Amino acid sequence: MNSLTDLSSVLGPHHPLVTGQTVDASLVQAALGNRPEQTPVWFMRQAGRSLPEYREVREGTQMLEACFNADLVTEITLQPVRRHGVDAAIFFSDIVVPIKAVGVDVEIQPGVGPVVSKPFRSRADLDRLRDLEPDDIRPIIEAVGAITGELGSTPLIGFAGAPFTVASYLIEGRPSRDYLHTKALMLQDPETWNSLLDKIARISGEFLRQQVLAGASVIQLFDSWVGALSRPAYIHSVQAHSATALGMVADLGVPKIHFGVNTGELLADMHAAGADVMGVDFRLSLDEASKRLGGNVPLQGNLDPATLFVDADVRERAIDSVLDSAAGLPGHIFNLGHGVPPNADPGVITSVVDYVHQGRAR
Amino acid sequence: MNSLTDLSSVLGPHHPLVTGQTVDASLVQAALGNRPEQTPVWFMRQAGRSLPEYREVREGTQMLEACFNADLVTEITLQPVRRHGVDAAIFFSDIVVPIKAVGVDVEIQPGVGPVVSKPFRSRADLDRLRDLEPDDIRPIIEAVGAITGELGSTPLIGFAGAPFTVASYLIEGRPSRDYLHTKALMLQDPETWNSLLDKIARISGEFLRQQVLAGASVIQLFDSWVGALSRPAYIHSVQAHSATALGMVADLGVPKIHFGVNTGELLADMHAAGADVMGVDFRLSLDEASKRLGGNVPLQGNLDPATLFVDADVRERAIDSVLDSAAGLPGHIFNLGHGVPPNADPGVITSVVDYVHQGRAR
Repeated sequence: MNSLTDLSSVLGPHHPLVTGQTVDASLVQAALGNRPEQTPVWFMRQAGRSLPEYREVREGTQMLEACFNADLVTEITLQPVRRHGVDAAIFFSDIVVPIKAVGVDVEIQPGVGPVVSKPFRSRADLDRLRDLEPDDIRPIIEAVGAITGELGSTPLIGFAGAPFTVASYLIEGRPSRDYLHTKALMLQDPETWNSLLDKIARISGEFLRQQVLAGASVIQLFDSWVGALSRPAYIHSVQAHSATALGMVADLGVPKIHFGVNTGELLADMHAAGADVMGVDFRLSLDEASKRLGGNVPLQGNLDPATLFVDADVRERAIDSVLDSAAGLPGHIFNLGHGVPPNADPGVITSVVDYVHQGRAR
Repeated sequence: MNSLTDLSSVLGPHHPLVTGQTVDASLVQAALGNRPEQTPVWFMRQAGRSLPEYREVREGTQMLEACFNADLVTEITLQPVRRHGVDAAIFFSDIVVPIKAVGVDVEIQPGVGPVVSKPFRSRADLDRLRDLEPDDIRPIIEAVGAITGELGSTPLIGFAGAPFTVASYLIEGRPSRDYLHTKALMLQDPETWNSLLDKIARISGEFLRQQVLAGASVIQLFDSWVGALSRPAYIHSVQAHSATALGMVADLGVPKIHFGVNTGELLADMHAAGADVMGVDFRLSLDEASKRLGGNVPLQGNLDPATLFVDADVRERAIDSVLDSAAGLPGHIFNLGHGVPPNADPGVITSVVDYVHQGRAR
């Protein structure tokens, strides 16, 4: 796919891809497999704790409360675009927002992460998940409309967690390093596992779909922790469910980015689930990743976040190295190989955007 | 290397490899690239919190205090051999023991892990490390002698942390998920980095050497967290230091096992640092790992620890799958793909040993 045509019947006449506002944006073009003059750049977790203006507006508001407040979501999503001049906004949300929206008792504990009061461990827990309806996320749909109105020609990337990663939070009940409960359920009771992941996939897919219909021009499905699985386990127990989630926006025509840390062994299989662009973490060079994908998949990545904490000349050599390894790609979206660390200096982040946009002589 | 000859000049006449006590042990033979009748099996972290008898003897004693108490180390090291009938003991210690032994202020905080009171961040910190002398670890040398006396024909595996992993604790000051300080020092100040890793390598290497001279028949160098690096970063900044550590026992002739989680991309380069056997985590099948190593390296691994929490029939199919993928290897040491989880059922662990020893019809 190298162009977007005739999307008005599915997206409606006012969508920024249909009006033409975001079609020529460097991010959309790179995601379609083209090489715009300037390499587009954005950062995972660009909207968040690294920004003082974020910490200010979040003060006194719980994380998940903020995610359902249209004004706050709008403001927070736009902050990094204003400050850094990045080439895309990423919708400010959290991986557990859609399951919260269908009634699961989950909260984000500061310094811990998502905590589910009663973890999902058995077949009976399946009844605790129902389909996501637009009415469950009205403030979110409203925020997407407000954001894309403000953004103009800068595309908004819709956001959702992939089935495995969402399931890992539901099953473990809190962030985990080893996913023992998750993998045990996957091995022990494939029927419950598949039903659970299918339910999550439809919730995540609908969450993405609503964001696209409200104005997002691209989506990213985050399978942050799926790198904990072997390739056979991914193919056997996860891939079909990621395909379900991605399939729920396939008819909308927007480019679909897919990413997880530590997924060098899984890139081709994750791509085969229906992604258009693969995000690559900092462990694998982009040219090696491209080779594993057959050489024709646009890639996103992959500066090591640690380079945000070194002198400019050292960091610029690292950026050069990413740009060099992307030279032969069909499309390249510059990003970190993981999220922005909360203690990163915003000035340094802006300098990365400027440096990538300059595009040193190569 | 498929045999051990003429080690008496380096190991002395009483070493169990020289007296012949452990030479025919299945673990030693598999590590040398042979296929003994029974596949040898042991478990990383087999000596530890999963055992009630461990929790009993540790009661009231701090972790690092226990690691310098010859009687406790002896008892704890032997416990899993008595209970499970595993084919090797692993010396009970901690990755930070050798740096504690040279005077670094480090403690193991329960529920956290190693905490260094003043993290290493600059060139001046190099002066805080000196070479390890046998006198720094007398109780440890004494314990190895007592253990190997008790073990008879069962080999003891010596234990040490590799330079990168030890450095990550010194630099971060506590366990980390992203190693930002560690990588920043590596990128920003290669001279300090290399001096630091060289010092650690000589400390770790000497720690291993003393264990071998006191009676260990095999060693394992744990680079637990090195999978956080890209392959170019590993080769550029770490490999030579792991080689220094492994080189300090090379003349002793004992087989050297090397392991880190998440190192599928690094296996060949870690092997090239001077290892004889590569440990493989649960993400990569043993046949694929063997392919990456040219097909002639004995492997250790790699049952997913999550299988300790499922029904016996599901677990046995997973064990079969590991044994099947090891069928073409020059040597195979059965192990988990990561450490024993503290909440694992000891009875289940014993059943894994029995099942592997039975060796189902393949």
